[in-house]
Amino acid sequence: MPGENLLKLNDDRYLGANTEERKVAGELYEIVKDLPLICPHGHVDPKIFAENKPFPDPAELLIIPDHYVFRMLYSQGIDLEALGVPRSDRGKTEKDHRKIWQIFADHYYLFRGTPTGMWLRHEFHDVFGIKQRLNSKSAMDIYDQIEAALQKSENYPRAMFDRFNIEVLSTTDSPTDTLIHHKKIQESDWDGKIIPAYRPDNVTNLLFPDWKSQINRLSVISGIECNNYQNFIKALENQRAFFKSMGCTSTDHGVNSPYTIELSSGAAEKLFQKALNNKATTDDAIIFTGHMLMEMARMAVDDGMTMQIHPGSYRNYNPVVFEKFGADKGCDIPVTTDYVNNLKPMLDKFGNEKNLTLILFTLDESTYSRELAPLAGHYPALRLGPSWWFHDSREGMLRFRRHVTETAGFYNTVGFIDDTRAFPSIPVRHDLARRIDCRYLAELVLDGVLDMDEAKEIIVDLSYNLAKKNFKL
Amino acid sequence: MPGENLLKLNDDRYLGANTEERKVAGELYEIVKDLPLICPHGHVDPKIFAENKPFPDPAELLIIPDHYVFRMLYSQGIDLEALGVPRSDRGKTEKDHRKIWQIFADHYYLFRGTPTGMWLRHEFHDVFGIKQRLNSKSAMDIYDQIEAALQKSENYPRAMFDRFNIEVLSTTDSPTDTLIHHKKIQESDWDGKIIPAYRPDNVTNLLFPDWKSQINRLSVISGIECNNYQNFIKALENQRAFFKSMGCTSTDHGVNSPYTIELSSGAAEKLFQKALNNKATTDDAIIFTGHMLMEMARMAVDDGMTMQIHPGSYRNYNPVVFEKFGADKGCDIPVTTDYVNNLKPMLDKFGNEKNLTLILFTLDESTYSRELAPLAGHYPALRLGPSWWFHDSREGMLRFRRHVTETAGFYNTVGFIDDTRAFPSIPVRHDLARRIDCRYLAELVLDGVLDMDEAKEIIVDLSYNLAKKNFKL
Amino acid sequence: MPGENLLKLNDDRYLGANTEERKVAGELYEIVKDLPLICPHGHVDPKIFAENKPFPDPAELLIIPDHYVFRMLYSQGIDLEALGVPRSDRGKTEKDHRKIWQIFADHYYLFRGTPTGMWLRHEFHDVFGIKQRLNSKSAMDIYDQIEAALQKSENYPRAMFDRFNIEVLSTTDSPTDTLIHHKKIQESDWDGKIIPAYRPDNVTNLLFPDWKSQINRLSVISGIECNNYQNFIKALENQRAFFKSMGCTSTDHGVNSPYTIELSSGAAEKLFQKALNNKATTDDAIIFTGHMLMEMARMAVDDGMTMQIHPGSYRNYNPVVFEKFGADKGCDIPVTTDYVNNLKPMLDKFGNEKNLTLILFTLDESTYSRELAPLAGHYPALRLGPSWWFHDSREGMLRFRRHVTETAGFYNTVGFIDDTRAFPSIPVRHDLARRIDCRYLAELVLDGVLDMDEAKEIIVDLSYNLAKKNFKL
Repeated sequence: MPGENLLKLNDDRYLGANTEERKVAGELYEIVKDLPLICPHGHVDPKIFAENKPFPDPAELLIIPDHYVFRMLYSQGIDLEALGVPRSDRGKTEKDHRKIWQIFADHYYLFRGTPTGMWLRHEFHDVFGIKQRLNSKSAMDIYDQIEAALQKSENYPRAMFDRFNIEVLSTTDSPTDTLIHHKKIQESDWDGKIIPAYRPDNVTNLLFPDWKSQINRLSVISGIECNNYQNFIKALENQRAFFKSMGCTSTDHGVNSPYTIELSSGAAEKLFQKALNNKATTDDAIIFTGHMLMEMARMAVDDGMTMQIHPGSYRNYNPVVFEKFGADKGCDIPVTTDYVNNLKPMLDKFGNEKNLTLILFTLDESTYSRELAPLAGHYPALRLGPSWWFHDSREGMLRFRRHVTETAGFYNTVGFIDDTRAFPSIPVRHDLARRIDCRYLAELVLDGVLDMDEAKEIIVDLSYNLAKKNFKL
Repeated sequence: MPGENLLKLNDDRYLGANTEERKVAGELYEIVKDLPLICPHGHVDPKIFAENKPFPDPAELLIIPDHYVFRMLYSQGIDLEALGVPRSDRGKTEKDHRKIWQIFADHYYLFRGTPTGMWLRHEFHDVFGIKQRLNSKSAMDIYDQIEAALQKSENYPRAMFDRFNIEVLSTTDSPTDTLIHHKKIQESDWDGKIIPAYRPDNVTNLLFPDWKSQINRLSVISGIECNNYQNFIKALENQRAFFKSMGCTSTDHGVNSPYTIELSSGAAEKLFQKALNNKATTDDAIIFTGHMLMEMARMAVDDGMTMQIHPGSYRNYNPVVFEKFGADKGCDIPVTTDYVNNLKPMLDKFGNEKNLTLILFTLDESTYSRELAPLAGHYPALRLGPSWWFHDSREGMLRFRRHVTETAGFYNTVGFIDDTRAFPSIPVRHDLARRIDCRYLAELVLDGVLDMDEAKEIIVDLSYNLAKKNFKL
Repeated sequence: MPGENLLKLNDDRYLGANTEERKVAGELYEIVKDLPLICPHGHVDPKIFAENKPFPDPAELLIIPDHYVFRMLYSQGIDLEALGVPRSDRGKTEKDHRKIWQIFADHYYLFRGTPTGMWLRHEFHDVFGIKQRLNSKSAMDIYDQIEAALQKSENYPRAMFDRFNIEVLSTTDSPTDTLIHHKKIQESDWDGKIIPAYRPDNVTNLLFPDWKSQINRLSVISGIECNNYQNFIKALENQRAFFKSMGCTSTDHGVNSPYTIELSSGAAEKLFQKALNNKATTDDAIIFTGHMLMEMARMAVDDGMTMQIHPGSYRNYNPVVFEKFGADKGCDIPVTTDYVNNLKPMLDKFGNEKNLTLILFTLDESTYSRELAPLAGHYPALRLGPSWWFHDSREGMLRFRRHVTETAGFYNTVGFIDDTRAFPSIPVRHDLARRIDCRYLAELVLDGVLDMDEAKEIIVDLSYNLAKKNFKL
């Protein structure tokens, strides 16, 4: 039967498993489904909008660069080489993208029940107009369809951006970046709003693989010779000002733990010099990073930029994969994260600042109700980022609301953040998040916690206003 | 439209988000909704019943002393001074209570989805007869109504107590307290049952700010000179006997962690003397507190008083707020809590005692299924207190039952404890708890886990019998 | 009314609390309810099948050996002696099994809402044909009925095994075991498939109470004199080969923590000699156990046996009970477990091996979404065992799926494992697990996450195929 393999997308998907709930959730969803997308944090490459070339083929777009996808395939015994993931030593990997796509299709059932599965289903259906389910048999047919779709001008990056109704998209950039693509976009006749975010990890982490050359680069770009700690700070301040002039409104900090400590300038200088002399130890790097978080908070109070902390990922946990393929290959593993003790020095000093917006994220869900909600429900400077990474999912988002709302309320959270490299998935991610928030609110309405008019206000805040406000957009 | 701002209170609120569940839960709720309230642990000031004066105005009653309320307002940038919270240095704070109320009303939306929001909604409606929703516009009108209501004799403390159908209310008192208000109540012609609970933290914690003057006070009150450890223990025993004679049936212990250790008398004496000489260190205080928990358990086995441990709060975490405003100002933050290793010495010695009832609380929900339920499902002496503080909420209470019941059952829990300073909120808190238990049981009935007659028995036990039994009331 | 005490068993029990969900779940359940049972890990004594004698009386079968049952009774003040639990010193315990059964019946309400309650209800009803609810009044009547049922040949162990439709049952055995019962079963004319699993804890844990005599036994059984580390390893390899020849396809490792470390042969030899000389310390044992996990993984890569790790239980936590009654008496308490740091050496070395199947279990549910799902969603060698022990329950299994599926998918889990000593409870345990999976999948279907045909495939995989595949059966 030809109907059997039809790709269906229920209109009321993710709005709840019972009719009553879906009905109320659906009413809320109608209000927000077409609101513009605020994308205040993510990893899309600005180059694609500067150049506005068509996206490459389906495998290059959806599999090879997406660690959510190849991580799962790898976990079931498929070599990354067979998926075309480039090796650091430029060793042989699969070049036939149709073969890669076929492997993906053969194992597509692995994504059942996962956010990747939900995103792809929606993306295939809505972005690329696919009407068949992906499986071994339909693989090549669907490949052809996506390949063809990508060549149409309506699917060029800028056209997609406009079609997706994105109001603003923030990229993530090092202070050592020239923002050349951002400049090009701003100077073009296209009015898509793409802004940078300031992420200094590669210069604040003394053991960043590339640290010294990044410091040199920072000296060149800022025009300030970073041969001592004081100049290093000046260069960072300088670059913040430059980023701000380019539209930047936020910084981001990826750290092992949210450890903070305030060093004297002398002590900081000593660590900085050790690093310049290639003598920094792991402990030195931890301490210096903790100190730099304090410095960044200080600068944020000054320049008003929103500060994000993304802690708790053990990066490149699998040395076999890291050595062969490099970073961001699906082997970053979350660890237990302590916010209360680690953040104390920073909160003692800056937590009561009204001019600071400090957004915390976590991969350790046990901290939602124990630490994060109580902290955010007290400190004027603190806000909670949405459920992150592995937890940016149907169940994960519900858990976030359930564990956080009662202590921190809705207004100490900052709305949805797509946090993705995968540009074509952006609308489906926002859509999923809006649906889950609708469902959560519907439950509260049906259970007598909220009146419907309150829920209607909240859903607009969660879908649009809070991100705009907290990222000062 | 005048109807738009009507304050509604669904009869079946909090009984579930679908009709089937609400129906069964409603049937259970009918059984317990009018049962008397057992209030075995809380922080109501006995003075209000001794004096039986009218409550002060709405701001003084509902905002200024309630850290649940001003914590949330503070988190959104409102100064505590503007909310009339008294400063330790007697510095200027807002004196116009109508202005304070207006700020509160302007930001009342912050409490959407929070227990405070649920309690206040119900309290406004049922206790004070308010029929409008609180917002910027209705603020003064509602202020007037509550102010007028508070002047009526039916809303005086004793009348409220009677109206609330409270069978017994326990306060929380230091062994250095004379229980003068309790005496006055007992000697009055009013028959409301108000009893003390024995909470010795201010003398067992060697670093309690006021420790030495509390020790002096203990000497005076007990008639036993607390100049050595042995006498200190005697004085504590003496005061337990006095409290018991005043109706006390329980003790309470607020500790950083549930760490326990048994010291020799010599070692305990040494620490006690160090403290008398102002030389006790943080470690000394931790060890002494751990030892005193053991001593308190020993005394509890002897005198049969129920013992409660409330661990895991990092008190006065925000030094800026603590220095300006003192303790209990919404900046106590939960921390990871280990029960298994910390309680071992105490459980080794007293866990198998049938004459001991030791009730554990937690702010670290990850311990529910991992540590607390397995412990309570084994030790004769152990019982689990209900979800506490931040987790005393609609979702929090559900999580407690879901994580605890399967391993510890219903009968190793102790029913609801309101644990509040806010006297007028007591019935709404019990009501919320009863509703959530009804909902949980309805789910079990509908899912074939329990028969309806079993659920009917259990709901009475959870709402009334278990608290009475475990607190020996 | 005679109908009042009827034991009912809803056909759609555990399939959800609302009608919509139950309907879809019921449709899925129909597909799998009669599938054969795969029992790849458990603690049933093979002797019962070798001898095929009738089971003893109800108390001997259902109470005295079941720590789930007497743990709960003990927690409410009932002495283990009164329940007939044998004392290590052979001291007096209740011998009248009818008295024991009566106590159990008097307190049967304690099991409301617990998995034990759910299992027993179903077991009474389906396995023993009981039609009354158990309580003080019906106790002796039900005792009589079960006693009579146990004498019928249809309830002899082999007949039950056949009737239960068990395809394969794995026991758990020490490498020092002769597998004499397995041999007898294999040599019999009965075709029930009962295979051993290799669990070397009593020889790999240097502080196992009986360690040295177990080592001697290993020498005798393997024919390899275990007087040095190298021979010890050879003997273990030898016994693996022997177990494999007897049908064994898996090993199991019960450890305090999943700590792993690779020692040089010299360092391992040193620890082994210390232990032979009765000088091994706690730290020595921890390190040696961590090293032996590495060795076991190495052997597993070689011989293809599936390796299970069950960490995180603080065994014999209550010394009073342990000294009086020995191990496995309901006083093992879960502790916080760190997989990410502890397993790193093992995963660095063997995590990328496609020939290894390493199944992880946990008692610390906070690790599901934080550590276990991300690890299993990346490493080819890793799979997640189902919710274990305290969490092998209606809510516990739902939590497992909710926390794990979105990151690890369904196909990095291994289906249900009954893990029980209580043979007659095996079908009811599988039935509960299948029902919960049906319910979870029904929710996903109703919420638009899965198509019904996908759910139908998945439920068969979860109920049957995944266990078979991952245990190489």
